Amino acid sequence: MISVILLGAGNVATHLYKAFAASNNVTVNQWYNRTLDTIESYKNDVEIINNLSQLTEADVYILAVSDDAISELSSQLPFENRFVVHTSGSVSAYDIDKKNRRGVFYPLQTFSKSTSVNFSEIPICIETLVRTDYSLLKSVAISISDHTKRVNSDQRASLHLAAVFVNNFTNQIYRVAHEITESNGAEFDMLKPLILETAKKVQDISPYKAQTGPAKRNDKKTIKKHLKALDNAHHKANYNLLTESIKKTHGR
Amino acid sequence: MISVILLGAGNVATHLYKAFAASNNVTVNQWYNRTLDTIESYKNDVEIINNLSQLTEADVYILAVSDDAISELSSQLPFENRFVVHTSGSVSAYDIDKKNRRGVFYPLQTFSKSTSVNFSEIPICIETLVRTDYSLLKSVAISISDHTKRVNSDQRASLHLAAVFVNNFTNQIYRVAHEITESNGAEFDMLKPLILETAKKVQDISPYKAQTGPAKRNDKKTIKKHLKALDNAHHKANYNLLTESIKKTHGR
Repeated sequence: MISVILLGAGNVATHLYKAFAASNNVTVNQWYNRTLDTIESYKNDVEIINNLSQLTEADVYILAVSDDAISELSSQLPFENRFVVHTSGSVSAYDIDKKNRRGVFYPLQTFSKSTSVNFSEIPICIETLVRTDYSLLKSVAISISDHTKRVNSDQRASLHLAAVFVNNFTNQIYRVAHEITESNGAEFDMLKPLILETAKKVQDISPYKAQTGPAKRNDKKTIKKHLKALDNAHHKANYNLLTESIKKTHGR
Repeated sequence: MISVILLGAGNVATHLYKAFAASNNVTVNQWYNRTLDTIESYKNDVEIINNLSQLTEADVYILAVSDDAISELSSQLPFENRFVVHTSGSVSAYDIDKKNRRGVFYPLQTFSKSTSVNFSEIPICIETLVRTDYSLLKSVAISISDHTKRVNSDQRASLHLAAVFVNNFTNQIYRVAHEITESNGAEFDMLKPLILETAKKVQDISPYKAQTGPAKRNDKKTIKKHLKALDNAHHKANYNLLTESIKKTHGR
């Protein structure tokens, strides 16, 4: 049994706790957060603490806190030469205080408190600065996920950046579509099957092959009609840039 | 039993044919296409024709052809005062030759030849210029779909435009993410669960509520890091515009 101590109480920490609690190979010894009230409801299942001096020994300490808090929290840890990882996509493993052995445990998914996630389908990117720590971290990852991948810092940074595109930017495209439909008395709900199908399509074929529509066909008549219909300058700018982007990709 | 004659052999026509063939209330009397070879494989199931003079009588004629072909094909039909609809999101019902009664039967989905679709989940937007034709077209729609909706031309135009955003533009965002990961030796495959989850999330909550990430938080440090990592001017332009778009939406 691998022992883990979790630090932080955000969405990643909470979903990680639940995944570990359901796993057979990892046990969460303690769950630390600065304020106890956020994790109070778990006190019957795990030792909850709010003071770093209460931290006991464990195989891995997982800092599931915001990017900006990683460095400082790691330097406050009252021990050394233990194995400490963070869960961030964009922070270097070197940002963890060097008094401990360092690594990264980055689950590539969007988490919200209310939505349950199936961790087994979530890719976990792992990285260790000390080579001998790798197999331990790998064991922790495969105890909750079927998609564990060793990635170096550059690869992780590019995955995090690409994740901003497919998650935040895609979601903003949905938002613009919401604004367009609502302002014309149409229902955004009607677009939901298309949203899902678009995401499903690229599970099997590349986005390049999946592309269709007026920009790819360079259908100037439809593009002109769409630009005329968009009365919001901000929507127009999005339309223009993404249309150019598609044309560029498909050699139009 | 409602009788339908299908004209065209593209993706929409083919998927419509399959859906009608599986329905209990609609029968496809004939399937017309300029060239027979595309629909040759269906000749044992339906009468296939390539000459408009062979068209027989039916309750509805569905022009499932490209936007540019609708007007001309409709004027070539060798009959009048029958009920003729097209399947386009962006073409007016008035583009159909006025010698017949006109309407629109627009399935709001992306179709590709290879991928099978569950038509019952696809919203079908219907519109008729003659009021008394509505209930017939409604019956045709509900025979294959659970999501039928009467929309006027403006609403349909805005749905079609919004569909370009959630389908073509979202897919282009996936493409950019593909380029970013590949150019750094990371795997686009790792992003697939996130792509799916992002689409699933807005089935239940609004895109506004679903938004997360550096742009929404106005996390200047991460944004700067991302812009520095993007060496492709075209990717950078997309990043900048969509980041500004999110900031605007969330009042940053």
